[in-house]
Amino acid sequence: MKKLAVAVPNLTEEHRRKIREAAERNGFELRFCEGEKDAAFMQTAEVVFGHLPEVAAVSKTLEWICTPYAGVDQFLAPGAFANPEAMLSNSSGAYGVTIAEHTVMVLLELLRRQPDYRRIVAAREWKRDLAVRSIRDSRIMLLGTGDIGQETAIRLRAFSPASLTGVNRSGSNPRELFDRVLTKDTWEAALPETEVLIVSLPGTKEACHMLGKKQLALLPEGAVVINVGRGSVIDQAALAEELRKGRLWAGLDVFEREPLAPGDPEWDLENLLITPHTAGNMTLAYTVNRIVELFTEDLDGFAAGKKPVRLVDRQRGY
Amino acid sequence: MKKLAVAVPNLTEEHRRKIREAAERNGFELRFCEGEKDAAFMQTAEVVFGHLPEVAAVSKTLEWICTPYAGVDQFLAPGAFANPEAMLSNSSGAYGVTIAEHTVMVLLELLRRQPDYRRIVAAREWKRDLAVRSIRDSRIMLLGTGDIGQETAIRLRAFSPASLTGVNRSGSNPRELFDRVLTKDTWEAALPETEVLIVSLPGTKEACHMLGKKQLALLPEGAVVINVGRGSVIDQAALAEELRKGRLWAGLDVFEREPLAPGDPEWDLENLLITPHTAGNMTLAYTVNRIVELFTEDLDGFAAGKKPVRLVDRQRGY
Repeated sequence: MKKLAVAVPNLTEEHRRKIREAAERNGFELRFCEGEKDAAFMQTAEVVFGHLPEVAAVSKTLEWICTPYAGVDQFLAPGAFANPEAMLSNSSGAYGVTIAEHTVMVLLELLRRQPDYRRIVAAREWKRDLAVRSIRDSRIMLLGTGDIGQETAIRLRAFSPASLTGVNRSGSNPRELFDRVLTKDTWEAALPETEVLIVSLPGTKEACHMLGKKQLALLPEGAVVINVGRGSVIDQAALAEELRKGRLWAGLDVFEREPLAPGDPEWDLENLLITPHTAGNMTLAYTVNRIVELFTEDLDGFAAGKKPVRLVDRQRGY
Repeated sequence: MKKLAVAVPNLTEEHRRKIREAAERNGFELRFCEGEKDAAFMQTAEVVFGHLPEVAAVSKTLEWICTPYAGVDQFLAPGAFANPEAMLSNSSGAYGVTIAEHTVMVLLELLRRQPDYRRIVAAREWKRDLAVRSIRDSRIMLLGTGDIGQETAIRLRAFSPASLTGVNRSGSNPRELFDRVLTKDTWEAALPETEVLIVSLPGTKEACHMLGKKQLALLPEGAVVINVGRGSVIDQAALAEELRKGRLWAGLDVFEREPLAPGDPEWDLENLLITPHTAGNMTLAYTVNRIVELFTEDLDGFAAGKKPVRLVDRQRGY
């Protein structure tokens, strides 16, 4: 009997019941694991459901590990898998909803001057004449058109933006959600007309510093940059310089080094709205529901000899 | 030649040009007025475009005054018009977009615990495990289905709520934007299942304290109340008590007495997100564009002997 080790936070009794049922119907020996006392079970399981690079690095029996997160950076180093044949999948379809809500929130906070209004309210003042802006009639670019980019586009569309431009590798337009889709060969030419830039790219080598000094300089005065993907996509020092000059506004949920250190200069930038990597964490019930759904479906497939739907290409990094 | 007095803030040259053209084609003597020096002109004009109850109270020549605001409370007292035949219109169609954006922003801030996360970020900490909630699958009630309620419903729909329930006088469902529409006879029965309550009602006598101690008590634990209409609709002391107990969350842009005084207890309520009546002010370019459009259309109609489209019924108060 193959072993299934589960180590996922925030599971309810209902989630455990669903995983138990999937394990039973597919003939797995299941254990919900917690820390050291279950180390031996985890390291000898054929299937692991958890964000456990330390298990992948030592287990010779591992056939498939599914992380409940979307990001897989920690599984990509050479030697990350003791069994090079082991499959890695992620839960990338589970975070679009929560990250899209975060993105719309942060965008509205920046356009509507909430950081300034919060200072006013904190001082118990009643000033109300700051010039605000609107999603309506804004030209918006989404760097990344996966689950996050699509869920964000669906919501932004309801605010009647002037345009939604997607950017991806293929130039394809998923579900026709975007007004146009550009590729890495054409996207930079559209930056001078981009009033809002939303980044949801994964932390791949290819995307590293894709938004560098040159690209940031192409954005018009007052443009808003939001990053809910990975910090490595943006040259953080170059962005900080633009923010310091007051030329751009930004909402960053991810950084080149996390957590931000108490002495990092980002904390002091007035045009920067910082969130501590909260856009896509696992504290929303809907997200955990989806993670469990996606895994149990894949477990049925695995038992039938299929590959997981969200199999990660370890060369490409997503 | 009839006189047209205009005293509206935030007008651009383009706005002035449009008003000038409308005045010319309809044969009005136009003056853009500012303060005392233009008092005589304003008080003898047949048409006034401005929020000027002090002019309505003394002018015997006034035939029509159009306020660029949506709220008309200050024009409703007995004796508010020296000429009882004068018509009053407002600009209620101009604020839906900006107030809807404000409402979605505040709702997401409350559901996603931004007030708590802001305290964490202000302390330069990196805590990220607060339980958040989502618009997705939430049961939402909108008290008021006018321009604001409709624009808000359009945007909320894109977030896949469980249901959008409208409440109005007639029970009609404008543009079929709501899953159902209740009236004042039936709405209270739906409160126990309401997770988010959005108030956009005007400050009429009928709506005064419509949300009182009894109605607030019917809301479930953790429900979110947002008021972007008028402060008088909610019994503020009763809401403060629920917030103090930690049973409800609220985002208030309007209050029974504005501005909030520095000593008011609302400032200290942790579950309350205060904005200083910024949801629908005139600082968004789109809003001013609409105000000017609506007025110039109505001026054409007025010259042709028609009543303004947004004529206020001074008995009903909107």
